[in-house]
Amino acid sequence: MDSMDSSGAMQVFELGERAIVERIREILGNSEIGDDCGLIRIGNEILVVTSDMLHRKTDFPPQMSGYQIGWMSAAASLSDIAAMGATPVGILFAIGLPVETEVGFLDEMIRGISACADQASTKVIGGDVDSHDELTIVGTALGCVNQEKILYRKGARENDFLCVTGSLGGAGAALSLLKDGRRSPVEISRKLFEPVPRVREGRILAESRVVSSAMDISDGLAASLYELSRANEGIGFRIYAEKIPTDPELSQILNPEEILETSLYEGGDLELLFTIPREEIKTLHGEIEFTVIGEVTKRGIIIVKTTPDGRRYVEPLSERGYEHLKERPPRKNYQG
Amino acid sequence: MDSMDSSGAMQVFELGERAIVERIREILGNSEIGDDCGLIRIGNEILVVTSDMLHRKTDFPPQMSGYQIGWMSAAASLSDIAAMGATPVGILFAIGLPVETEVGFLDEMIRGISACADQASTKVIGGDVDSHDELTIVGTALGCVNQEKILYRKGARENDFLCVTGSLGGAGAALSLLKDGRRSPVEISRKLFEPVPRVREGRILAESRVVSSAMDISDGLAASLYELSRANEGIGFRIYAEKIPTDPELSQILNPEEILETSLYEGGDLELLFTIPREEIKTLHGEIEFTVIGEVTKRGIIIVKTTPDGRRYVEPLSERGYEHLKERPPRKNYQG
Repeated sequence: MDSMDSSGAMQVFELGERAIVERIREILGNSEIGDDCGLIRIGNEILVVTSDMLHRKTDFPPQMSGYQIGWMSAAASLSDIAAMGATPVGILFAIGLPVETEVGFLDEMIRGISACADQASTKVIGGDVDSHDELTIVGTALGCVNQEKILYRKGARENDFLCVTGSLGGAGAALSLLKDGRRSPVEISRKLFEPVPRVREGRILAESRVVSSAMDISDGLAASLYELSRANEGIGFRIYAEKIPTDPELSQILNPEEILETSLYEGGDLELLFTIPREEIKTLHGEIEFTVIGEVTKRGIIIVKTTPDGRRYVEPLSERGYEHLKERPPRKNYQG
Repeated sequence: MDSMDSSGAMQVFELGERAIVERIREILGNSEIGDDCGLIRIGNEILVVTSDMLHRKTDFPPQMSGYQIGWMSAAASLSDIAAMGATPVGILFAIGLPVETEVGFLDEMIRGISACADQASTKVIGGDVDSHDELTIVGTALGCVNQEKILYRKGARENDFLCVTGSLGGAGAALSLLKDGRRSPVEISRKLFEPVPRVREGRILAESRVVSSAMDISDGLAASLYELSRANEGIGFRIYAEKIPTDPELSQILNPEEILETSLYEGGDLELLFTIPREEIKTLHGEIEFTVIGEVTKRGIIIVKTTPDGRRYVEPLSERGYEHLKERPPRKNYQG
């Protein structure tokens, strides 16, 4: 990294989100900042707190209703709480509203926030409203988890199984179709417009006490694997294209190659990515819906693919996905 | 209030912040939302959490440095924590940065946030960065306080003394001078640019267990008195103009009438306003710097003034001060 003195005139987009966060961490001298949540110890419990900033133009497709914008804002923060295995204990919202916002739209947004909080068995406990040129929502979610059970990004070990909850690609596919002016099957649309944070799954993973690392994949599976690799000082992953669970409805609208691309590189799915020692995998069976998609290796992130005639080959997985404050990806993206 | 169905096409600026917050509270069906903080019970302790959204254009005078912007953002949230008598346990920041922001400016902002957290004996535990057209900062502060000691806005009783900490008018005066292109004495400038949240004072008020209500006056003394009156189901206040403690340096730059106006109606001072039964006032002497400025009455908010020839007269106090999402006050204001 450049020295802090010499780069004063550099602009933030030249650095990108990851380098900026690293820089902030250095200035604060607080190495505890990591993962997506701040941690506060209260006896044997850990309070996890996360703030996510979302904007009308970059984070919400124009077709989204007020209700869905509210829902997604709550879901994005709750997903970070879920990834640490915590039980949500409250949400706060700071909302910057253009003064010409219709009151009915605001009402819908609040109903969406409230509905998403409800389904995660928590509630809105406070917030702030302010005027702003662009609709801006910062959701802050709080959760509690026992210190013996909390899930961190760090902890993955070589040979652990690599798993994801649910199925992938839905949010990304729905967004692609929207941009082409096409409609998605309703199940797919919901993945984009009303994604369900994996709060229950996160808690079960935490209760199991055998999961070695976890995070959500809101920035996309590939980007998350790189993030998880960095959090674990450079361990690697081998994943199998054919094992990646994808939404069954995707085959109605995309070809197999597009489905794989979407599942790997598009954000928005709020599934959890986790690692677990092979011998412990049985403890999760019947508890949650998940799929083993690969394993932890010494280094490198590779994907094993199969040719149409059945031959296996290996490719390095590219590090594409959503990063804030970098030049925008080719397709405008949204992220949870 | 208009029915929610009929007002869908109304725009939010027609309502203003207070009506909007009331509306949100109704939609959420959570009457616990109040004061400036959300509350989470953890055993006998209460976790108080507050989020404040601040913007470059409306909340920070253009002359403010990155360091001061960071400091003030932290101070605004910590002041809400202080007003409940809580001990800060962490701060999070969600920062929306224009992509052309210079890295050196961001560094300074983070240093300002960190310095303000330090002086309140807490630290930054997490956050989020994102790109945004306008610099936007949402600070979320968390604090802990015993349930027997927590300070609420509600609780003031008739005949209680009404008090404020520190001295008023500094932030407002510095802002006025800035707008006129004049410089303030350094002690006054600091009130605007690096206000110190009254964390220590809040804790002492809470520990005393005799304070009947409290809030901060970041939106101005007059506006805060109206707010405190509403929180207490319409009790009133009588305040005495001559008792309002003002920064001594103000007399170098403003006439007595301007000093009073500024102290009553300008926001930005992060002092605490509180009520206390008369017989308990002695418990605070020597503990914190505070002044009795009036008393709690049955109804109405009035100010007692004195003519130059020594005759006392009474005026209703006007409800002026900063309210978000309403037409801007005559002078562009900033608020903490």
